[in-house]
Amino acid sequence: MEPVETPNKVLKEFNSLFYPKSVAIVGASKNKIGGSKFWLALQYTGFEEIGGRTYLINPKLSELFGRKVYSSLLDKEIPKPIDLVIIAVPAKLVPEIVMQCDKIVKFGVIFTSGFGEADNISLENDLKNAINSVSTRFIGPNGLGIINPYSRLAIYPDWGVFKGNVSYISQSGGTLARLYLNLGPLGIGFHNCVSIGNSYDISINEVLDYFYHDKLTKIIALYMESNPNARKFMQLAQKITPIKPIVLWKGGQTKRGISATQSHTGGLAGRYDVWKAMCKQSGILLADHFELFIDLIQVASTRPVTPKNLNVAILVAGGGIGVEFADKFESAGFSIVDLQNETKDKLSEIFPPINTNLKNPLDLGELSYDPRLFSQAMEIVLKDEGVGSVVFVREAERFDIISKMIGIEDAQQMTIDSLSKIIRNSPKPVICNSSMNIDNEKGYHQRHEFQVKMIEAGMPVVNYLGNIPKILKQFYYFGKFLKNRKK
Amino acid sequence: MEPVETPNKVLKEFNSLFYPKSVAIVGASKNKIGGSKFWLALQYTGFEEIGGRTYLINPKLSELFGRKVYSSLLDKEIPKPIDLVIIAVPAKLVPEIVMQCDKIVKFGVIFTSGFGEADNISLENDLKNAINSVSTRFIGPNGLGIINPYSRLAIYPDWGVFKGNVSYISQSGGTLARLYLNLGPLGIGFHNCVSIGNSYDISINEVLDYFYHDKLTKIIALYMESNPNARKFMQLAQKITPIKPIVLWKGGQTKRGISATQSHTGGLAGRYDVWKAMCKQSGILLADHFELFIDLIQVASTRPVTPKNLNVAILVAGGGIGVEFADKFESAGFSIVDLQNETKDKLSEIFPPINTNLKNPLDLGELSYDPRLFSQAMEIVLKDEGVGSVVFVREAERFDIISKMIGIEDAQQMTIDSLSKIIRNSPKPVICNSSMNIDNEKGYHQRHEFQVKMIEAGMPVVNYLGNIPKILKQFYYFGKFLKNRKK
Repeated sequence: MEPVETPNKVLKEFNSLFYPKSVAIVGASKNKIGGSKFWLALQYTGFEEIGGRTYLINPKLSELFGRKVYSSLLDKEIPKPIDLVIIAVPAKLVPEIVMQCDKIVKFGVIFTSGFGEADNISLENDLKNAINSVSTRFIGPNGLGIINPYSRLAIYPDWGVFKGNVSYISQSGGTLARLYLNLGPLGIGFHNCVSIGNSYDISINEVLDYFYHDKLTKIIALYMESNPNARKFMQLAQKITPIKPIVLWKGGQTKRGISATQSHTGGLAGRYDVWKAMCKQSGILLADHFELFIDLIQVASTRPVTPKNLNVAILVAGGGIGVEFADKFESAGFSIVDLQNETKDKLSEIFPPINTNLKNPLDLGELSYDPRLFSQAMEIVLKDEGVGSVVFVREAERFDIISKMIGIEDAQQMTIDSLSKIIRNSPKPVICNSSMNIDNEKGYHQRHEFQVKMIEAGMPVVNYLGNIPKILKQFYYFGKFLKNRKK
Repeated sequence: MEPVETPNKVLKEFNSLFYPKSVAIVGASKNKIGGSKFWLALQYTGFEEIGGRTYLINPKLSELFGRKVYSSLLDKEIPKPIDLVIIAVPAKLVPEIVMQCDKIVKFGVIFTSGFGEADNISLENDLKNAINSVSTRFIGPNGLGIINPYSRLAIYPDWGVFKGNVSYISQSGGTLARLYLNLGPLGIGFHNCVSIGNSYDISINEVLDYFYHDKLTKIIALYMESNPNARKFMQLAQKITPIKPIVLWKGGQTKRGISATQSHTGGLAGRYDVWKAMCKQSGILLADHFELFIDLIQVASTRPVTPKNLNVAILVAGGGIGVEFADKFESAGFSIVDLQNETKDKLSEIFPPINTNLKNPLDLGELSYDPRLFSQAMEIVLKDEGVGSVVFVREAERFDIISKMIGIEDAQQMTIDSLSKIIRNSPKPVICNSSMNIDNEKGYHQRHEFQVKMIEAGMPVVNYLGNIPKILKQFYYFGKFLKNRKK
C-alpha cells in the first residue's frame, strides 16, 4: 500500500475509499461475473500482496475459492472498521446491507442496479433513506467502483495494471472499460478510475474536487450524462482546468440520447448546446464520441499545447493524401496557410522538385521518410510565423523499406529521436497521423508499436484523421480560455 | 493465364492491358523501388508460372536478378508485339520510349511523373504529342498501373493476392495501396485495380466502361479528383449503378483540396456540392474520406441493401453505448423510432427487466451475448414495420466469456450462423459495429477475426461508429435513385 499522507481535508476524507486497507465483498458467489469478479480482480492485481485484507460475505456459503466466507458484515471475526465494502446482492436486499454498514464501514460501492434507472422508484427511495441514515458513504448504485493501480483496487480480472496520472470519472461502466483498455496499452496510465453509477451519495463534483487536490492526478477525464449540480460543476472546472486539463465526453446530446440517459443512470441530461458553451467558458476539452474522447486524453497527457490560430501546415508523402488532408482541415474551418517565402526556399534546398510539392499541403515525397530530411523539414515549418500548428503523416510500415534504401539501421527510432528534440522546443501543437494501412496483424503491430514509442517520446499519434481538426480546435478554445483568464 | 474470351468490343479492346501475355519493363535497374519493383512484383505473384513472359530493358545493363537485360524495346530477340510495357525512366526520356512503342507494343503504363502536375508544360506537350502519334495506348503518366490477381499483374512485391469482384480505378497510387491492403485481408478481393495517374490517353471513363462490361466485376470503386468529361462520366454511371454499385471517393472537396489536386494529378476538380448532387442523381455511393470509402465498399460487396427510410433500431448491451448510438444517429438525421407494442411485448418475453432497457436504443444487457437470445431479438426487431434498418454491437472479446457462462462451445460462431440465417431473409440493411475495445494484439486479433467471419457470412462490420449513419444514408439515396428510375 503506497500511503497518501496529506493534511488536505478533501484528500483525507476520501483516503479510505481510494486507498483502502480492507475490502469486503457482500454477495460473493460461485458466479464469477457477479460480486466474485471484484475479489478475483483484487487477486489479479495483488491487493493482498501489498498488505490489503479481503473478506467474502454470503450467508449461504461457508467457503469460496478456498477461503472462508462470512455470513455477514457484522461477523465479529472481521476487524472493524472496514475501509471499503462492495455490495453485489439483488436490488431489494441492498437497503438492508447499507444499514448494516453504519459505523463499521467507511465506504461502500453499490454494484447492484435496478433502482431509479429501472423505474423502481420505491426501492430507490428505500435505498436513499438507508444511505442518508448511516455514517458510511457510497459510490453507486449501478456503478462498478474504482480502479487504482497504486492501491491495487480493480474491478475486473485480467485488465492489466496501468499506472499513470490520468484520473477518470465515468457514468458508464462500459465506457470505463473501453477507456482503460484502449489507453493503458498505449502507455497512458491512470491514478484512479471511478465508475460512479447513479451517484445517490458521492457525487461527480466531490470526486472531481478530490482529483483536483490529488497530486498524482495531472489530467482529469470524465464521461458524464447528467449532473444535478451543473453550476457547481462549472465553478469547479474553471478552478481546475488552468492547472489540470479536463477532457469531457458528454453523453446525451440529442433528444433520444437524452431520453436514453434516463434509463441508463436515472439522470436527465441538459441541452447539449448549453453544455458546449459552458465547456468553452470553463476551459473544458469536449468530445462528442468515444474515439475523440480517448484521442483528446492522449493529446492532453502527451503534449497539451494550445495553437495560437487555426492556420495549419500539413506534411505528407504522397499527392492523394495531401488532397485528403486539405479537404478535411479546410472543411473543418482551418486555413491551409501559404508558407512564407523563406520557408519554401529552405525546403526547396532539401527537397528536389521531382515527386514533391512544396505548397501547403506539402507533399515531401517518399524520400522524406529519411529521418534526417524529415526532421529538417519539421524544424523549418515550425519556425514559419504564419503556422499555428503542424500535422504530419508517418506510416509505420514504411520505416523498414526506407532503412534499407538509405542504409541506416532503424529509421523509425531515428525519426522519433530527431523529431522529439525539435518538437519539444516548439510552442506549437504537432500531431502525427498514422492510420493502419495494412489491416492484418503485422500492420497492427507496426502501427501500434510506433504509436507507443511516439507517445513515450511526448508526441501524440492520432489514427483517425477526421479527429485531428477537432482536437486542435478544442485546444484552440482552451488556449483562448486561458488567455482571457489572465486579462 | 485465365483467358477472357468474349465478343464484346470494349472487353476485346482492353484484353491485352488487363490480361497481358508479355510484359516489358523499361528502366529496370538495381534500385528496387524503381522500375524493378514491377518485375519483382510479377515474380511474387507468379506471372511467369502461368505462362507470362517478362523482359527487362536498360541500355546500361546486361544482366539483372540473374536475367538478361535488353538494351531496347526494339531488340530483335524480344518477340513482338509486346502486350504491356511499363515505363520507369526519367521524365525527359519518356517521349522517346513512347515513340519506340509504335506498332510493336499494345499497351503501356507510364510510371514516371514530373509532367503537367509538376508544371513541366513543355515536357507534357512532348509526351502528349508522342502518345498521339503512336498506335500504342497508355495508362499514366504518374500512375502505378494495374493489379489483377487473375492475370497475376501486380505493382508491388509482398502485397498479397486477393481475388474477388471489386474493380478499382484510382487517381492516387497511395490510395490504391491503402485500399488494396485494407480490404484484401478482410476477404474482399479484386478483379482489377488501376492506378490511372494523369490519364493523358486512357481515361477513367474508358476503364469504367470496361468494368461495366466485365463479368467478373460486381462492384466498382473509384478515387477521383477530376474528370475532364464529367458529363460522360455521369451518363456512364447512370447506366452502371442499377447493375453494379459504384462507390466514389471524390478528392478535392474544398478550395485548398482542389488546388492540391492540381499538383497531384494535374487536373482541376470541380465544385464538390455539384458533384454531391450529381452522385445522388446517378446512384453513386459517395464517400468524403478514406475510412468511409472502404466501409462503403465493404457494405456494397457484402450486403448492398437499401433502407426504405431513416428509422433505425439500435441493439446494444450497455446503457452508455446506447446513449452514444442514439446521439450519433439522431444528430445525423435519423429517427431512433419507437418500436411497435408487439415488438416490445415479444422482446420482454425474452429479456427480463433487470439491467435491460427495451426502449430504442435497446439495451439488451450482457446476457444478450447468448446467441440463442440475440438472434431471436434480431428476428423480432427486423419484423417491426416501423424499422428501416438495424444497427447492433458485438464486441468480439465478449464471446469467450459468454461461451463459458452459458456453457456453449463457440458463442461467436453460433452468433454468426444464427444471425446470417435471419438477416439473409430480411429486406432491411443490418450493420454490425465492432470497435476494438482492447488496444493490443489480442484485441486486434479478436476483432479482426470476427469481422472476417462476419463478412464471409454476408454481414458487414463497421469499426468506426460515426461512419454507420453515413453509410446508411448513402444506401438510402441509392434506394431512392433506383425507385425513381423505375417510374
